[in-house]
Amino acid sequence: LRSEAGFDHGLLTPVSSGADALVSDAAMLAAFVTAEVALVRAWRDPSAETISRVFGWSGGGQVVTDPGVDLDRLVVASVAGGNPVIPLVGALRARLDPSDRPAVHRGATSQDILDSALMLLARRAVRRVLADLVQLRHSLAVLAVTHRDTVTVARTLTQHAVPTTVGARVASWIRSLDRSRSRLETVDSQLPAQLGGAGGTLAAFVAHADHATASRLPAAFAAELGLAAPDAPWHTVRWPVTELGDALVQTADALGVFAADVAMGARTEIGEWIVGAPGGSSAMPHKRNPAAAVLVRSAVLRAPHLGATLHAAAGAAVDERPDGAWHAEWPALRELLRLVLGAATTARDLAAGLSVDTQAVARNLALTGGLALSERVTIELTPVLGSVAVAEIIARASAGDDLAGMLQAALRAAEEVEEPSRRASGSIGALLDPVRYIGLAGDFVDHAAEEAS
Amino acid sequence: LRSEAGFDHGLLTPVSSGADALVSDAAMLAAFVTAEVALVRAWRDPSAETISRVFGWSGGGQVVTDPGVDLDRLVVASVAGGNPVIPLVGALRARLDPSDRPAVHRGATSQDILDSALMLLARRAVRRVLADLVQLRHSLAVLAVTHRDTVTVARTLTQHAVPTTVGARVASWIRSLDRSRSRLETVDSQLPAQLGGAGGTLAAFVAHADHATASRLPAAFAAELGLAAPDAPWHTVRWPVTELGDALVQTADALGVFAADVAMGARTEIGEWIVGAPGGSSAMPHKRNPAAAVLVRSAVLRAPHLGATLHAAAGAAVDERPDGAWHAEWPALRELLRLVLGAATTARDLAAGLSVDTQAVARNLALTGGLALSERVTIELTPVLGSVAVAEIIARASAGDDLAGMLQAALRAAEEVEEPSRRASGSIGALLDPVRYIGLAGDFVDHAAEEAS
Amino acid sequence: LRSEAGFDHGLLTPVSSGADALVSDAAMLAAFVTAEVALVRAWRDPSAETISRVFGWSGGGQVVTDPGVDLDRLVVASVAGGNPVIPLVGALRARLDPSDRPAVHRGATSQDILDSALMLLARRAVRRVLADLVQLRHSLAVLAVTHRDTVTVARTLTQHAVPTTVGARVASWIRSLDRSRSRLETVDSQLPAQLGGAGGTLAAFVAHADHATASRLPAAFAAELGLAAPDAPWHTVRWPVTELGDALVQTADALGVFAADVAMGARTEIGEWIVGAPGGSSAMPHKRNPAAAVLVRSAVLRAPHLGATLHAAAGAAVDERPDGAWHAEWPALRELLRLVLGAATTARDLAAGLSVDTQAVARNLALTGGLALSERVTIELTPVLGSVAVAEIIARASAGDDLAGMLQAALRAAEEVEEPSRRASGSIGALLDPVRYIGLAGDFVDHAAEEAS
Amino acid sequence: LRSEAGFDHGLLTPVSSGADALVSDAAMLAAFVTAEVALVRAWRDPSAETISRVFGWSGGGQVVTDPGVDLDRLVVASVAGGNPVIPLVGALRARLDPSDRPAVHRGATSQDILDSALMLLARRAVRRVLADLVQLRHSLAVLAVTHRDTVTVARTLTQHAVPTTVGARVASWIRSLDRSRSRLETVDSQLPAQLGGAGGTLAAFVAHADHATASRLPAAFAAELGLAAPDAPWHTVRWPVTELGDALVQTADALGVFAADVAMGARTEIGEWIVGAPGGSSAMPHKRNPAAAVLVRSAVLRAPHLGATLHAAAGAAVDERPDGAWHAEWPALRELLRLVLGAATTARDLAAGLSVDTQAVARNLALTGGLALSERVTIELTPVLGSVAVAEIIARASAGDDLAGMLQAALRAAEEVEEPSRRASGSIGALLDPVRYIGLAGDFVDHAAEEAS
Repeated sequence: LRSEAGFDHGLLTPVSSGADALVSDAAMLAAFVTAEVALVRAWRDPSAETISRVFGWSGGGQVVTDPGVDLDRLVVASVAGGNPVIPLVGALRARLDPSDRPAVHRGATSQDILDSALMLLARRAVRRVLADLVQLRHSLAVLAVTHRDTVTVARTLTQHAVPTTVGARVASWIRSLDRSRSRLETVDSQLPAQLGGAGGTLAAFVAHADHATASRLPAAFAAELGLAAPDAPWHTVRWPVTELGDALVQTADALGVFAADVAMGARTEIGEWIVGAPGGSSAMPHKRNPAAAVLVRSAVLRAPHLGATLHAAAGAAVDERPDGAWHAEWPALRELLRLVLGAATTARDLAAGLSVDTQAVARNLALTGGLALSERVTIELTPVLGSVAVAEIIARASAGDDLAGMLQAALRAAEEVEEPSRRASGSIGALLDPVRYIGLAGDFVDHAAEEAS
Repeated sequence: LRSEAGFDHGLLTPVSSGADALVSDAAMLAAFVTAEVALVRAWRDPSAETISRVFGWSGGGQVVTDPGVDLDRLVVASVAGGNPVIPLVGALRARLDPSDRPAVHRGATSQDILDSALMLLARRAVRRVLADLVQLRHSLAVLAVTHRDTVTVARTLTQHAVPTTVGARVASWIRSLDRSRSRLETVDSQLPAQLGGAGGTLAAFVAHADHATASRLPAAFAAELGLAAPDAPWHTVRWPVTELGDALVQTADALGVFAADVAMGARTEIGEWIVGAPGGSSAMPHKRNPAAAVLVRSAVLRAPHLGATLHAAAGAAVDERPDGAWHAEWPALRELLRLVLGAATTARDLAAGLSVDTQAVARNLALTGGLALSERVTIELTPVLGSVAVAEIIARASAGDDLAGMLQAALRAAEEVEEPSRRASGSIGALLDPVRYIGLAGDFVDHAAEEAS
Repeated sequence: LRSEAGFDHGLLTPVSSGADALVSDAAMLAAFVTAEVALVRAWRDPSAETISRVFGWSGGGQVVTDPGVDLDRLVVASVAGGNPVIPLVGALRARLDPSDRPAVHRGATSQDILDSALMLLARRAVRRVLADLVQLRHSLAVLAVTHRDTVTVARTLTQHAVPTTVGARVASWIRSLDRSRSRLETVDSQLPAQLGGAGGTLAAFVAHADHATASRLPAAFAAELGLAAPDAPWHTVRWPVTELGDALVQTADALGVFAADVAMGARTEIGEWIVGAPGGSSAMPHKRNPAAAVLVRSAVLRAPHLGATLHAAAGAAVDERPDGAWHAEWPALRELLRLVLGAATTARDLAAGLSVDTQAVARNLALTGGLALSERVTIELTPVLGSVAVAEIIARASAGDDLAGMLQAALRAAEEVEEPSRRASGSIGALLDPVRYIGLAGDFVDHAAEEAS
Repeated sequence: LRSEAGFDHGLLTPVSSGADALVSDAAMLAAFVTAEVALVRAWRDPSAETISRVFGWSGGGQVVTDPGVDLDRLVVASVAGGNPVIPLVGALRARLDPSDRPAVHRGATSQDILDSALMLLARRAVRRVLADLVQLRHSLAVLAVTHRDTVTVARTLTQHAVPTTVGARVASWIRSLDRSRSRLETVDSQLPAQLGGAGGTLAAFVAHADHATASRLPAAFAAELGLAAPDAPWHTVRWPVTELGDALVQTADALGVFAADVAMGARTEIGEWIVGAPGGSSAMPHKRNPAAAVLVRSAVLRAPHLGATLHAAAGAAVDERPDGAWHAEWPALRELLRLVLGAATTARDLAAGLSVDTQAVARNLALTGGLALSERVTIELTPVLGSVAVAEIIARASAGDDLAGMLQAALRAAEEVEEPSRRASGSIGALLDPVRYIGLAGDFVDHAAEEAS
């Protein structure tokens, strides 16, 4: 049965999407072969063109089109030595003429190929994430601008606080996402190739050629792969992995807040966010589950733990190649890439279909009968009525009394005894109008909308 | 290309082994179908035998032999609703005669099927882990008994401390493993089926039948699956998941200490442990990497983070079904099962091939020229020579002077001035003989060997 | 300034409570001294009574009343050696007559004292947590019984699903808490004393006395401390730490779901839960923040990471005493104890003041105009109207049409063409009455109320 | 008893150092007060100078010298509302004349003060860490240069691999540390002040003044504190916290690899690293524990989990202020700062006292009788002898035969049949000389030494 090949098809990986093919085992294998061919090319070996042709070298940061190695057989063969590169080299050479074989893997150690291939895969995945983030930003910017002045209630510690705008809330998501995008872009531009040889000294490269050649090889190898040139081997200097991981987790955090706010605002009682493609339920045909938000949230719950795994491994990178810490990175990094790929795609689609129920927004804002303006009332009327009287009025309003009425009466009494103040002379209606108490909310939207994505 | 079906074949999952097929997507699918069939059977529906036959019901805790659903198509279909059970029910019904269809999924919610299937999978995986742990314990018990009296040096904070025995060290691994085995067995016997219906009240089961039938269904369903009967639905009561996770992580911890001690003892400079099937290196043909220990260690580095993911999800299980926390459990639990399956198998093989280089053990013990006995010297000779003199002798021995010689001279001088003590009359050779300072080490081995595995 | 002594007074430890004094540095110091005195007593040393008197030995699992060591000075002195026991032994001996001094710490290693003291502290903290959980359970059981039949809406993936009861929801919290309590009790009864000597062989105890005495000492030592007798030293066998940690995290999970549900139900728009002692806001005097729920949630977010730290340390416990892993346990375990102590106390108080706004519950349930019964409608009327017609009616009701009216009309039409079915003859009002669709909810409450806490 | 004030004095926080006073509760309190005073100053309030004088304003990124609030009382008062700022404002106002009181906390919300104070504390701690890292780098650079050409064996997967140099190993530590330093510096320069008011719109600031004033206040506030001006409020945009956390964990990782390599190299059997201030043992007076390395390692094991806590909180920052996620950050961030402060100081001291036992280095390198050169032998002699013959010679050497002798014989035989190759004509001694097979190791040292720290 075809579907039994392979351990994981995405059945229980909630945010699995088409994009995760970018980091599948098949993609990984292609990246390994790409790294091996890139090394031959970096050597400027006479066999380079032949070997490039055999494996379908594409260049420009693409993976080879014809790795030509049986994945399942490679998996079995890789168990004994603990990594797949050792049997891979044999399998690649077997596809070549004897005279071309020695050029393959010349001077390299398994970690050179594996780390470089992971960086290549990561770069392709990160660029896909970035593309999704751009689209996501665009949808959100439209939402923010559309609802620049839709007044809603700010909620703190679960309770209605003061007014804000839907636009300002969306602008806040955009700021988080922009920051994570910026980190991802920086990291992406710095993902280095790895080339150090067995002990990280490049001695084998010197032995095969000379000091000057060995010195220039890492940059040449990186250039073939479209990766950054390493300043030195990073076999046990693992910031390329952890900075990538951190940027991915930061992206997940930003996606998570967006999804959590949407899931919250889509609750039946709140109903401010309307999702475009709700999930159904066989048993309860009326349900409109915000399934995309739920899936993004599930991803975001897992991301910090994967990032921590990468750090735990990085901090245990002893010797010139550690006894387990390096191996622990592979599945953690790949799962983190897959998770953020899926979360970004899902969030992009969620944002594209998202709209605001402005009636629900207004209805919720009105729920507390003006108490969302209690801070403003305190600021504006304390000079007139005194802090004790203001506090008492708000307390009674919290218990159900009519806030506007009480304020009106108190102001009228105050005006009898003294010159009406400039501010208090404004109507109570204006004072309790949430539209007039949104501070710089509009500026935040304008700022978010301005920035080219 | 066949190998391109599926995301993950085990290529970069270091401890991937044959055993992880127990928790693959294909196995997961079979478990889903098994749960659906078990529910029909628990209902004692007239269609039960037909449906059992169609899907290859096996009973006895086995999964069905003929799920007959295309895995890749199911994965695609499951994205919209956020879980695969909704499209699965349709696919299963499509294989049945119209009259048999309504019996499928009667009264259930997706979570009933998914949670029960995960528990079924977990139980099968846990039993495989337990079987590997039994074999591992056997190998270790043989090692412990063989080296019951092989004196070696205890190391604390990386430094030689006092004597112990190889057997006592192995017995310590056995105690850790026995404890985790005991936890796994307890958890295994308590893994419950899930049956609550859409809101966890079983109201649909009552509506389809009556209160009494709905009350007995969960236990009947559990019995069909060979799982424990739940006391009530546990849609948001997630101890069945976290206790399983904790026991698995505890098992990983125990395997990790074993692997770490072997990796350390196999270092070129120490050389006390000889591994049976060392990993090779294409570049360095002389290397005998303790690859199995390395792979187990890589698993163990990751396990705590997966366990923490399960707890984070459990603590966020709000409402009657949470908005992401439940979905986050699936990949984390499955990866944790896979990881412990692989680590247990790999550790079992490591132990089976493990032997002791007793010459290296003796050579290392002798490295500090008797200073491993300094605690004993202090205890035995302080009454005779005084603590100041003993401390001075040990300090000079640490700097390179001959410990035995200095002690001999000091004792002779002491005997001149007073009655020789009982203990001091023993020869210095006996005092500095590590074999005579191993305390209860032998008892620990005997205890570990006695206990039936 | 008095308040400057010490690093941490609880200022930014949100759930800090009076209870965390049980695991403060001062309590820790008292526990160290208690362990040292207990060892002297276990030895049945002639100095035992004198030494017990000097330090204020209390017995019965209590800590000594007069440790008499300057904490700040001890902290400074403990830096060099990496643990506080080495300077502590000197400080304790300095308080004794020369003849009583050698009895202190006889045969022991620092880890014996430190691990035993941590277990002693843990047991005292766990018992306090258990006491809080008993009170919490009592409050929740009263709530569950009071609202056994208060029908509310079950929410899944943030959306209204089907009816359930407030009592059933509370019973679900109780089941989680009961399970964690049971785990804590089991762990509590098994917390072992530690006694192994420098290399874990008890060789020094044999040297000071004889094999038989050394064999009985660990149990005698444990008995003095009121801890469980260890089967053997567990210097690198760390299940006593991780099982404790797991049970604490499991408790945090259970508290977290309770707090998260309350925080959600206390949201301004939902308003089903009324908290007794809401937190205020200087700027917004109307706010009634569910501060206790918020604080519990903050604790619960942190707990899994502390539990994972303990596992990471346990899996790295190499040699006979590891080079960092053991030290990493101390702050992680203590912070986890403190966090669960605070969360349990805070949750207890939250539950004691909690009440239900039954009007809000009813109002929310009515929000979807009967659609919470769509599953029941489907089950009951599909046999009468056919699945296509039922689905269409529910779809139109989801879009705003009158569900009851449409059903009435459809049934009337159906009755014209055929014999009225038994069920359909019931009134639509009864069919859409949520009280009649709560399944076994009442049973779950009765079950939770029955169980003696 | 003085030492009983406060929960934590550093007794069981292994890397606690004098530096952690920078983030103690007392320091935290001073930072709170500093933020409140800075806000008054940013307002250019007429009371600003008076208030500055009362609390001992220092400016220039320093905390106030006279917070004048009882810490223990504040802790008790802060429990009800969930954060200490509410009671703090009252306590501060109580120290002022009535006319100066309204200026305090004008327009602000608790989170503005708390977040800004945490950033202020963080910046002071980060700068101390950076200062320690500079000293650490200096010590390491001296070591690297001193041992630029000290040939040692590279170890991979615990086994001897090929030659490298001590200098290259140290240069690798330096590269990790330089990168984390660079990240910390970037983060440090971007730590923003927080100013958003109750709902993040700055509406209260507008109400107290006007739009323009409210717009310029955040930057003015930041300038007073010496922090970066925020682009907008970041109440739920938590990258300032997670990027700081990530940089701290990255620093811990780098320190961890250094400490782990030293701990490994200091093992009794390896003995290549000599630590300057070893830890002692009361029972085993000969021990020279690498206590500093052990303590750094204990810190490093914990760091990833604290970083993950910050990410978990950041991803759950819902609403305009979340219901627990924000509160969870405080203890996690503070503990992470403390931990890295201690680890950096301890690592600095470790490096300052570190030296190399070159005899041990040479002895270890010689252990495998030339097999560390097997890669070179393969590269150089395969063209002469053929790969089969070379592999056989190395296999026999691995089993104990004399490598040099076998090679000599084989070469002599080869030369008889054909023209001697250029390379093979070199002596076997030169071929097996590890000094001639260290590749670019020297370049890496030179590069690390050149870079100004």
